[in-house]
Amino acid sequence: MTTIALDAMGGDHAPRAEVEGAILAAREFGVRVLLVGQQEAVKHELAKHSHRGLPLEIVHASEVISMDDSPVMAFRKKKDSSVHVSARLVKNGEADGFVSAGNTGAVMATAHFILGTLPSVDRPALAAPFPTSRGGVSVMLDVGANVDSKAVHLEQFAIMGEIYYRVIFGTRRPKVGLLSIGEEEVKGNELTKEAHNRLKRMPLHFVGNVEGRHVFAGEADVIVCDGFIGNVALKISEGLVEHIGTTLKEALNSTLASQVGYVFARKAFADFKKKLDYSEYGGAPLLGVRGILIIGHGRSNENAIKNAIRVAAELSHAKLNEKIEQELSEVGVSAKR
Amino acid sequence: MTTIALDAMGGDHAPRAEVEGAILAAREFGVRVLLVGQQEAVKHELAKHSHRGLPLEIVHASEVISMDDSPVMAFRKKKDSSVHVSARLVKNGEADGFVSAGNTGAVMATAHFILGTLPSVDRPALAAPFPTSRGGVSVMLDVGANVDSKAVHLEQFAIMGEIYYRVIFGTRRPKVGLLSIGEEEVKGNELTKEAHNRLKRMPLHFVGNVEGRHVFAGEADVIVCDGFIGNVALKISEGLVEHIGTTLKEALNSTLASQVGYVFARKAFADFKKKLDYSEYGGAPLLGVRGILIIGHGRSNENAIKNAIRVAAELSHAKLNEKIEQELSEVGVSAKR
Repeated sequence: MTTIALDAMGGDHAPRAEVEGAILAAREFGVRVLLVGQQEAVKHELAKHSHRGLPLEIVHASEVISMDDSPVMAFRKKKDSSVHVSARLVKNGEADGFVSAGNTGAVMATAHFILGTLPSVDRPALAAPFPTSRGGVSVMLDVGANVDSKAVHLEQFAIMGEIYYRVIFGTRRPKVGLLSIGEEEVKGNELTKEAHNRLKRMPLHFVGNVEGRHVFAGEADVIVCDGFIGNVALKISEGLVEHIGTTLKEALNSTLASQVGYVFARKAFADFKKKLDYSEYGGAPLLGVRGILIIGHGRSNENAIKNAIRVAAELSHAKLNEKIEQELSEVGVSAKR
Repeated sequence: MTTIALDAMGGDHAPRAEVEGAILAAREFGVRVLLVGQQEAVKHELAKHSHRGLPLEIVHASEVISMDDSPVMAFRKKKDSSVHVSARLVKNGEADGFVSAGNTGAVMATAHFILGTLPSVDRPALAAPFPTSRGGVSVMLDVGANVDSKAVHLEQFAIMGEIYYRVIFGTRRPKVGLLSIGEEEVKGNELTKEAHNRLKRMPLHFVGNVEGRHVFAGEADVIVCDGFIGNVALKISEGLVEHIGTTLKEALNSTLASQVGYVFARKAFADFKKKLDYSEYGGAPLLGVRGILIIGHGRSNENAIKNAIRVAAELSHAKLNEKIEQELSEVGVSAKR
């Protein structure tokens, strides 16, 4: 039975959403979930639900990382946090992967320090799903695990993202694109020009540069970029959706007739917002670490947690990291060597 | 009388929208407009309108730069294009500024080569307006004039953007922010960390880092970034708005009741899209060149052209470039020295 450690203290609605998500996942997918957190708080939450016979266990962790903790301080000062304990369960082989909807920076740093990277990987990358106009999903990486990437890192991101996409979405030969500022090969900055040159020689279905305005068009399944760019792209999209929501609401609230319109528009808009929330797709994996880690949005609800646990179990089952390691060592793209 | 050269062959709707916009601007603002383009085409369009007594003149340019021309080839091979002729009119003092809704890359490159930069400016920057949830406008620069900026360039962008904002929006002390991936000073990449350090020592109202998700919140009036990042931010916003529009339309077209809702939502959404189109604010100035240049969106209509001419005249009247030159030489931020 696949075992997933869940940081029960992570998200905005922890431990409630976490405990409920764990119960749903254990029931629907038969995944064993280790609820990692302050024993009393988790036990109290568990007692509210019927979960007899489900493969759920509490693993005590005395400390909690808050959203305000800096990544480095959280790692150094809170050695018994639910994130540390979850990462150690994975490191020791007691769990096949872990899920957290907590402070993204702290979770990434702690996981990176405790688990380390795969032998052929120089830097882990956070991969976030974007909904596309074609009704599918594109995955962009890196959206913030690292900054100041080199071309060799983007090559590794391409391979890791491609394998992840294959495993999760079942696409045989995902299209890989490079986020840049023009479609032509010569457009971009020093990093993307070098990366373009390298990517086109790789055994990938490389579709070339993808401009910002085509990200949501679904032209590529996997979109590769430096973590600074990806983070700005992700966050500006989230901010713009909020902004459009507010603006539409104001515009539509002005008259009774348009209020009627708003009722329908609101539903459509809410559906759309949900699509943009990567928790709907099971969160964002931190690819390249020695172990499976899925990071959920802070506002993850029980369904998001359930999906994240499912994805963690699927990635573990599909031996994602063995595949990444094998393909990377075959292709031989590493700055380490 | 202020004289503005207008690339009459530039936008998607040229020369119709250009000629109509020129007539509107000449009538409403008393600006003299030099319509630069193929004489017959412009004359033909002008003949459709009553413009007696308005200060409009045609300046012949035999060539037209298309949207597909590469910037460098357009500059080198089409020496008698409407863009070249417009830029030369500014260089020779026959026009106080120029406006083009043509191929942005080609217009920027041609203007840069022909006009050169201001003595204290190392690199020009394209400044694009973003609507904010507070009902105002933030200006982001650079959105694509250059890539691989250094911190000293971002300092220059900050000063140029701040002066531009003061002139156009009348704000006495605009707030200047730095686009980054976290609010804390230590967050970001090498470029933004160094730029943060420099910006906080400058005689500006520096509000620190602005995250992607806060761009539309209006936390800063002027948002400074490298041109690669700014271009991705601008283009992904445009693409997302298209995507949301399509998604909402589909969702709202499904039932008759929601179609009623859509009528209202569509209006609100169209209003919003209009706000995001920088032509509504008079286009995007290329700051730092020796001369005033306003770049309009390719799809500029006559109103957008009219506004761009107004802004060009205002910037010329306010002696924007003299102000930029004076403040930059006072602060002494230049990589040239």
